[in-house]
Amino acid sequence: MADLHLLSPLGFRAGGVYAGIKTRHANDIGLLIAESNATAAAVFTTNRVFAAPVKVGRAHVKAGKLRGVVMNSGCANACTGKQGERDALEMCKLAAISAGGSAKDWLPSSTGIIGHLLPMEKVRGGIYQCSAVLGNSSEHALMFGEAIMTTDTRRKHAAVSFKVGKQVVTVAGVSKGAGMIGPRMSLAGPPGVKGGQATLLAYLTTDAKISAAALRKVLAGATDESFNALTIDDHCSTNDTCCMLASGMSHADTSRGAALASFTKAVNEVTRSLAYQVAADGEGATKVFRVVVKGAKTDAAARAMASRIANSPLVKCAIHGNDPNWGRIVSAAGMAGVPFDPDKSTLTLAGTKVYAKGTPVKFNADAVSKAMAAAEVTAELNCGSGKGSFIMYTCDFSKEYVTINADYHT
Amino acid sequence: MADLHLLSPLGFRAGGVYAGIKTRHANDIGLLIAESNATAAAVFTTNRVFAAPVKVGRAHVKAGKLRGVVMNSGCANACTGKQGERDALEMCKLAAISAGGSAKDWLPSSTGIIGHLLPMEKVRGGIYQCSAVLGNSSEHALMFGEAIMTTDTRRKHAAVSFKVGKQVVTVAGVSKGAGMIGPRMSLAGPPGVKGGQATLLAYLTTDAKISAAALRKVLAGATDESFNALTIDDHCSTNDTCCMLASGMSHADTSRGAALASFTKAVNEVTRSLAYQVAADGEGATKVFRVVVKGAKTDAAARAMASRIANSPLVKCAIHGNDPNWGRIVSAAGMAGVPFDPDKSTLTLAGTKVYAKGTPVKFNADAVSKAMAAAEVTAELNCGSGKGSFIMYTCDFSKEYVTINADYHT
Repeated sequence: MADLHLLSPLGFRAGGVYAGIKTRHANDIGLLIAESNATAAAVFTTNRVFAAPVKVGRAHVKAGKLRGVVMNSGCANACTGKQGERDALEMCKLAAISAGGSAKDWLPSSTGIIGHLLPMEKVRGGIYQCSAVLGNSSEHALMFGEAIMTTDTRRKHAAVSFKVGKQVVTVAGVSKGAGMIGPRMSLAGPPGVKGGQATLLAYLTTDAKISAAALRKVLAGATDESFNALTIDDHCSTNDTCCMLASGMSHADTSRGAALASFTKAVNEVTRSLAYQVAADGEGATKVFRVVVKGAKTDAAARAMASRIANSPLVKCAIHGNDPNWGRIVSAAGMAGVPFDPDKSTLTLAGTKVYAKGTPVKFNADAVSKAMAAAEVTAELNCGSGKGSFIMYTCDFSKEYVTINADYHT
Repeated sequence: MADLHLLSPLGFRAGGVYAGIKTRHANDIGLLIAESNATAAAVFTTNRVFAAPVKVGRAHVKAGKLRGVVMNSGCANACTGKQGERDALEMCKLAAISAGGSAKDWLPSSTGIIGHLLPMEKVRGGIYQCSAVLGNSSEHALMFGEAIMTTDTRRKHAAVSFKVGKQVVTVAGVSKGAGMIGPRMSLAGPPGVKGGQATLLAYLTTDAKISAAALRKVLAGATDESFNALTIDDHCSTNDTCCMLASGMSHADTSRGAALASFTKAVNEVTRSLAYQVAADGEGATKVFRVVVKGAKTDAAARAMASRIANSPLVKCAIHGNDPNWGRIVSAAGMAGVPFDPDKSTLTLAGTKVYAKGTPVKFNADAVSKAMAAAEVTAELNCGSGKGSFIMYTCDFSKEYVTINADYHT
């Protein structure tokens, strides 16, 4: 079996071109289109400051079907008022005219700097140009994958197949994100889920046949355990969007029963892989930091503690420096505003128990430091108070993050 | 009038010595003592993981009177179990034996690394040594001020005098803090105020005569607008403590009326100055970032937005780089989980309006960048939705913060 990619599910084409929006020469306009209207679901940022394409996208996806996604990188089209909305709508119209469907069948997406109007002459040219290069090869998937990138250093993609009877169903996706990452996306608008922070964009394709209601539920559930369990800098973007299109062309119905369970598992696998890849490519990141909280009173309490640990600059600097300064981790859990009894808790860092039931455990600091010099470091906090658990993904915090976000002017 | 200092209020002595707890040669044991039991109030961290000295201090200050404060730097005595509590109590006993009063009249404080037992042989020697060098000169205030420092690069102190009739009353204080700063201190234990993050230590003296109840109320109010309005890295310490001692030796009663108002104003001035000095000396800081939120629906909503702005690594990197990337500020306000309408909001950065009612304002980016290259930068967000306001103090985020917290092992 050839390697799967975004366009492996039957019934999709995509492309990407450079329209001159980004300063560096790299694709900045992308189109992803289904052969006919696909069943569709999307989750969006819960930030009260949301970009024009998010407003338009929310309205267009309500019908539960979309023809495709038209997107640009290099400009977020956020904080741009009425003109921004007109521009996002125009992107949909241009996609419909040049690629198919009607304007309301398109979901627009943008990522880049906030507070600038889209350079619409470049955008117009780019969409027309892109519509002429659409295809379903792995190269086309790469072209689209490049168009969605900003400060990302590599493309993120994932895909899996499973069988429903004798029919093969494929779920695939691409994502982008490196800074302004800490999504709390929901089906509804703000205030859906509280808290939160990222521009994360993710686009998923499948050839499963599924109802819009079931697709929405699966996507929301998968998002909550993947993208919403991811943070880089605890800053919720104005543009976060994850959109899934189901072409139905496998003719395998995954709306219920065992087929739905298989489909849900596949979507979870793809979204978790995409989220993990975003964490690994965080701005300035040298490693993935996996925060496991177990034994909390509730899953929500575990999430709150994991989030505090994963977002503490002090903790993330220690992870960067391979410093087993575990007090920062325990104290971060204690400030989450949820029940937490340090006297019942145990902390394991990079495989070594360092704290047990309120007191320090003697350990070889050099050995733990060496174990922390890895591509992935795990801290596991067992609270000893219940069955609540949550896993959060983030990265370490390096000087390079400051360089990227302070030294290069917008 | 000579410059005022911590020991200018009548009835106090202090000192500091190097006992060998810190690795570098600098005072690490400090004593602050009143001539007889002083009226006392204290606020402490609301972190559920609180240090042994916080537990002991909470119990001792309940009576509303204290003889003094015995503190060490270089070791937080946090996450140290029963032995940690015994050690904190022993510090009080040693202070009482060597300097006066009984053990329960002393408030212990510690700051430094979490998860290590106090080196009690050094602590014992240090307390005895310190009790032999107590005095009330400005040099003694400096000795004590040095003993409370950890990664601080400079001492923080403030003092003001006012008159009640013909009597002069003085309020003075010292503070420390540079990293693990974002206090949410309260009179009660956790969960008092939600959220929060620091080791901030502050000790205030006054020769006002005041009831313990009035002192508690004044201190809690002042803390909320000063130390609790301060953040460096949004990490709530296990040891945050602010303790105030009133000797009564001015014989001016400030428990009510105009005298209470004057006293409250003086305490607010001192705590605000101390908090500002902590922000300015934040780990790696090159400037103070002042976040003003006005026109919010409520003060609490304004506080939530100001806190999100002041704690965003993206915003703080932009402030460090003199980059007028105002979209980061507006989007941080939008993720605070409180009512916020971008279409009614206006943002001024370093004196220039950059965003008004949902749309960008054209401005000279070079000029704003130049204005941002100052010792203090202000962002003022007017939400246009009510009368709620709040001012938060923080600093910029530099590579030096990462160096301090990643490169040097504990």
